[in-house]
Amino acid sequence: MTYLFNQPSAFASELIEGFVAANADKVRQVSGGVVRSTRSQPGTVAVVIGGGSGHYPAFAGLVGQGLAHGAAMGNLFASPSAQQIYNVARAAENGAGVLLTFGNYAGDVLHFGQACERLKAEGIPCEIVTVTDDISSARPEEIEKRRGVAGDLTVFKVASAAAEAGLSLDEVTAMARQANARTRSLGVAFSGCTLPGAEQPLFEVAKGTMALGMGIHGEPGISDTEVPRADALAELFVERLLQELPPGVTEAKGQRCAVILNGLGSVKYEELFVVYRRIAQLLQEHGIEAVEPDVGEFVTSFNMAGASLTLMWLDADLETYWRAPCNTPAYRKGSVIKAEPLSAAEREVVVQEDIPPASDAAKRSARCVLALLETVAQTINDNAQELGRIDAVAGDGDHGIGMARGANGAVEKAREVARRDAGAGTLLCRAADAWADKAGGTSGALWGVALNALGTALGDELAPDAERVALGVTHAREGIMHFGKAKPGDKTMVDVLVPFSDTLNQQVAQGASLVDAWLAAAAVAQQSAQDTAQLLPKMGRARPLAEKSLGTPDAGAISLALIVEAVGKLLQSNQGGAA
Amino acid sequence: MTYLFNQPSAFASELIEGFVAANADKVRQVSGGVVRSTRSQPGTVAVVIGGGSGHYPAFAGLVGQGLAHGAAMGNLFASPSAQQIYNVARAAENGAGVLLTFGNYAGDVLHFGQACERLKAEGIPCEIVTVTDDISSARPEEIEKRRGVAGDLTVFKVASAAAEAGLSLDEVTAMARQANARTRSLGVAFSGCTLPGAEQPLFEVAKGTMALGMGIHGEPGISDTEVPRADALAELFVERLLQELPPGVTEAKGQRCAVILNGLGSVKYEELFVVYRRIAQLLQEHGIEAVEPDVGEFVTSFNMAGASLTLMWLDADLETYWRAPCNTPAYRKGSVIKAEPLSAAEREVVVQEDIPPASDAAKRSARCVLALLETVAQTINDNAQELGRIDAVAGDGDHGIGMARGANGAVEKAREVARRDAGAGTLLCRAADAWADKAGGTSGALWGVALNALGTALGDELAPDAERVALGVTHAREGIMHFGKAKPGDKTMVDVLVPFSDTLNQQVAQGASLVDAWLAAAAVAQQSAQDTAQLLPKMGRARPLAEKSLGTPDAGAISLALIVEAVGKLLQSNQGGAA
Repeated sequence: MTYLFNQPSAFASELIEGFVAANADKVRQVSGGVVRSTRSQPGTVAVVIGGGSGHYPAFAGLVGQGLAHGAAMGNLFASPSAQQIYNVARAAENGAGVLLTFGNYAGDVLHFGQACERLKAEGIPCEIVTVTDDISSARPEEIEKRRGVAGDLTVFKVASAAAEAGLSLDEVTAMARQANARTRSLGVAFSGCTLPGAEQPLFEVAKGTMALGMGIHGEPGISDTEVPRADALAELFVERLLQELPPGVTEAKGQRCAVILNGLGSVKYEELFVVYRRIAQLLQEHGIEAVEPDVGEFVTSFNMAGASLTLMWLDADLETYWRAPCNTPAYRKGSVIKAEPLSAAEREVVVQEDIPPASDAAKRSARCVLALLETVAQTINDNAQELGRIDAVAGDGDHGIGMARGANGAVEKAREVARRDAGAGTLLCRAADAWADKAGGTSGALWGVALNALGTALGDELAPDAERVALGVTHAREGIMHFGKAKPGDKTMVDVLVPFSDTLNQQVAQGASLVDAWLAAAAVAQQSAQDTAQLLPKMGRARPLAEKSLGTPDAGAISLALIVEAVGKLLQSNQGGAA
Repeated sequence: MTYLFNQPSAFASELIEGFVAANADKVRQVSGGVVRSTRSQPGTVAVVIGGGSGHYPAFAGLVGQGLAHGAAMGNLFASPSAQQIYNVARAAENGAGVLLTFGNYAGDVLHFGQACERLKAEGIPCEIVTVTDDISSARPEEIEKRRGVAGDLTVFKVASAAAEAGLSLDEVTAMARQANARTRSLGVAFSGCTLPGAEQPLFEVAKGTMALGMGIHGEPGISDTEVPRADALAELFVERLLQELPPGVTEAKGQRCAVILNGLGSVKYEELFVVYRRIAQLLQEHGIEAVEPDVGEFVTSFNMAGASLTLMWLDADLETYWRAPCNTPAYRKGSVIKAEPLSAAEREVVVQEDIPPASDAAKRSARCVLALLETVAQTINDNAQELGRIDAVAGDGDHGIGMARGANGAVEKAREVARRDAGAGTLLCRAADAWADKAGGTSGALWGVALNALGTALGDELAPDAERVALGVTHAREGIMHFGKAKPGDKTMVDVLVPFSDTLNQQVAQGASLVDAWLAAAAVAQQSAQDTAQLLPKMGRARPLAEKSLGTPDAGAISLALIVEAVGKLLQSNQGGAA
């Protein structure tokens, strides 16, 4: 869908106005399109690009210092007229002739050709280079019939940087031809697009299908398949492009390539990065160095879903011009801030994870804390599904999964630091960090806070005693209320933690053993968890809440009650042992 | 739809790998996210941003010199954990403390808060600024409850540039608060989005509906309406944002604003420019100067369709930091190429349209040519629908509309230059250019070529005679075949033009009057046009051809035959007069 337009027939001219209003520091409008609004170096070749509108950043977004001097902007998906191209070229012309360069489509060839003849008839030297990078659009023997797609950018960039460097029209033309001869692209599509105000899509791709080689106006591709996994698409792209090395390149290994992974409109950046991950691996495996790769949207077709991979096989000149600075509305290279890359050693900044020294008593206690964590994780794993079911009533249903990830992560970390002779305090703090990290979400963070507070109270010097544990629980309760911003009565885990902590502290103050005190407190916690069964918003990340039933207890309160109960049982069965 | 992924559960971590592979010159991966791969100025504050993944360029795309020092990257639409944030902050930390800044969501507030406490506990000064720009998410009296959307960028940019300038942590924090206090956004949504591998959309918007104020994770908005026209959306955005001037701004007039028109994923650049056109007009009407406006994708939600407008009301400091250079994967300011803006006079380069002097005879002939063009336009207008119908069989059905646009444009231009005393040759050439310009498409260009050739043959000195007209038609035919690359037998207008031109020239050579020769040639043209009725591909812009019926004549051939017939009739009825 295209959503935003006024009169569909005015769309192409209105978009130019808005584009120029937003980018007046770089471009200005002339009859037929846009040219730079900044002074170009006198006596240099002007590079004029163009084509139909609907492919932004192509073509107007690529006008500016270091890239094109002007862009002729046709109607949606339609070539600009010769008159438009002529007007833009006259306004862009800079004393050393004009290179017209554009994707190879019949209408564009016709109109740019006619504009070229007119410029020459008026004494302005003019040359043409058509871009023919799309390997799916004709066989290698008919390369001149191929369409131009995202390889437009590599050719425009090289030609423009050569012009900026002061090369003559013949030399700039030769560089553009060289760039085109060494540029290859392959595209795929998953959906078509609908032009502003149209009732029907201009073209479509069957749901679940990938059209291999489909063009950016829906030109038919080579074949249709199921949508592959991201890695499989990366492999397809690289394999096909490597099957057709350009003239002068005998083997892929050792080559350097400019790389563009282009999204057509509604395949988004995150997806492109997942695909690029595998492309980068494959290029490395083939011994190809990716030079200033670009991953993003460079030649689009409204909200068409699709992507293409472009490789320009570099030589020394092409690399120089590919890397040269430029500053256009949609494409910029070079930085005014000079910044050195970090050295390899500096990149290896690792957050310190030294294990502080601990007393023998604290090391023994650490074994006990590890056993407790294992019991907690087991309890959570056993109840994860039920916790998820409870959470789904009022939240997003991931409480069980998140708690299980957190508890299992905590156990894994605790085992590691126990092997490295950590004390009980350090072990619990490290496990707490791992819990928060693996669990994610709000409850993960709160468990991280709670276990960290408890671990800090235990310390690495003495064996934990009842007072120390009770104090730690108090600190955990304070941390959770501080960070979670929940108060008693909000129907969260706080409604369990507060009576648990109160009872534990009272019992300990009255001289009860840790085990007895803990068991008494756990029983109170059980009751409190059931009492949370009321309709109240859950604290947490803002998101649409599913409708809630009255009477379902809070999942976070339930899991806390389960955990203190399990810990109590283990303490009881170990009564003769440590802790 | 999200199309490209491997294991959905691995999506968030794979996208980081791909992102870092594509941008290794600017960022490097650390546990929990990314930090700069270039050396920051020692002794400056580190600005660490972050949030859930799925919003690229937010957040990782904004890390680099002049912008953020690091970004903690959570799972899709989920806050990073405190551990992740802590790790990123430790790796980014640069000797002068850390500012943590992020959009105001409960999960992020919790985790960033916890990371902040941990950093402070380790002796690293740390402050927090949450971004609360979304005016639809809470009333002005509860501004601290508002969500952060695209205003993230203005706050991050100002804070980071202040850090780059060497300000202390307290000063950087104050600047970030000032930026947030003066930043306001309003967003709308037209569709939801589907996370990788999910079978159902995460949230939806009813078809044809605009959800005003919907958040970037589908948080409920204020109201639902029909999708408005682009201009009406611009008016809504500006009106609502101007209703809530920030503290310290008493009237809009005379203010300077940073402006971001943000697309959420599948509302594309061209649509945004159409909306921005009206926004720019409105800001100007209100006396507001837009400073370095940005139109594009800055905070997305996969392929969610929607847009938002952000204004940051500038003061001197905010403007300095908004304009400061930066160089990140997705956001760059400043250019290494120094380029002066053109002066106002230089911007007024207008392609010359002087009318060359003409003989009185040629001026009289021009009136006759104008009358002929008017007849041609009338004929085309009368037959436009039928020409469209014929064209729809083999082409895209726009031949009639295009020809009518061209012919009417030609008449308009011919009238203008006739008033300025143009000769017949100049009048026809200018009309030809207007035809090609207004008609667009292949046939428009070919008619431009043909009429230009004819006009050149007529010239501005002598009254046209039969020989000159016949020669002009020959040149027109050559021009069309040269540019159109069609040969006789390709079943195009060439199949009509060639026998027409042959007959005309033969008749004239045999001494026939122009009228008689033209009528004879027109009759041949009629017959030839009917003969094009065979199944053959049409020349033209590459696009999927509709299925064709055998037996429909070519629309371009038909319109040519109609035109020469109409011209013949007018010549006949004027036989006593000029030409």
